[in-house]
Amino acid sequence: MSPHPRVGREHILDIAEKLFTEHGYKSASIRAIASECGVTNAAIYYHFPDKESLFAEVMQRHAENLREKMAQAGENISSPRKKIEAILNAYVNAIEGQYAPIFMLRKDAKHLKNSGEHHGKLMKSINQPLVEALQLAQQIDEIKTQPSAEEAAAMMLGMLHGLAQQHRSAGIEGRAILEDDIQTAVNLFWEGIKK
Amino acid sequence: MSPHPRVGREHILDIAEKLFTEHGYKSASIRAIASECGVTNAAIYYHFPDKESLFAEVMQRHAENLREKMAQAGENISSPRKKIEAILNAYVNAIEGQYAPIFMLRKDAKHLKNSGEHHGKLMKSINQPLVEALQLAQQIDEIKTQPSAEEAAAMMLGMLHGLAQQHRSAGIEGRAILEDDIQTAVNLFWEGIKK
Repeated sequence: MSPHPRVGREHILDIAEKLFTEHGYKSASIRAIASECGVTNAAIYYHFPDKESLFAEVMQRHAENLREKMAQAGENISSPRKKIEAILNAYVNAIEGQYAPIFMLRKDAKHLKNSGEHHGKLMKSINQPLVEALQLAQQIDEIKTQPSAEEAAAMMLGMLHGLAQQHRSAGIEGRAILEDDIQTAVNLFWEGIKK
Repeated sequence: MSPHPRVGREHILDIAEKLFTEHGYKSASIRAIASECGVTNAAIYYHFPDKESLFAEVMQRHAENLREKMAQAGENISSPRKKIEAILNAYVNAIEGQYAPIFMLRKDAKHLKNSGEHHGKLMKSINQPLVEALQLAQQIDEIKTQPSAEEAAAMMLGMLHGLAQQHRSAGIEGRAILEDDIQTAVNLFWEGIKK
């Protein structure tokens, strides 16, 4: 029988995500996480060998949730292009703001031992719904197969991030990316990649 | 007469850039910078009121140098598209590697009081040669005027960064962006934005 049956992994991950996001990796201690969960440090260590593993899992779970939201937004849309627009809208809604959890967590990812590898896994999760939509478009011969679907997905997200940065540095108030911006970016990209 | 005539600003900025890049903002102290310059702390403070101002100037100078390299690469090329390819090649050569000074410095920019503003100025410098080439292409009616030249420049750089990230996270060895990749990105973008 588990020695700490009443502290669920998911609950610990919820609290840890909140504290890592609010205070950063270094400042959010295992003790603080345990205390907010109402348990001892040992209960945390029962589930996660160390703070680093806990953080890695928080990030991975966050990316999985984001991937899921994106995939759901694209479901039941048959046109790959429209599917991609819906996926990108879901992405932008989820990550809105420079201080969105994903950016706060990512900033701290350098504390992880294999930070490059973790970052790669993360990006792969988030890109996946776009990659699938692009693969579909390649299969029905709507777009070129060069760049690859993986490269094209990363380029599209990069375009949006570049645009968001430009809007912020130009002092545009409010949301850095609007639906119209996504439309503009997808139009441009599609014209460029279509067969 | 200047009390420290033999310590040039430029020399201090050179040493400061080296130490900030190698050790990070927090670890590189004014004392270490002064010592490496062979002068007292007071000589540094004569030129820069505090560490933050010194760092801000290091970053701005770094961005200006990069802007200059990019602009030079595009000089004497009349086709806007070829000009942009040359500018992007210069950019990629200069920033090659995740640990290029520009990224190390940018990571530390959060220590600056008006970090958003500094970041905006920096991006503006770096984007400038691309913006000018895109404006030229708009003027000769080769590309659309929507997105704006500023937005298009940021989107192109974003595309390349996305692609570099994808290549690194896919475990591709060596340079994350090759000349062929720049060609692919520019081709795609140009097809998408041309009139």
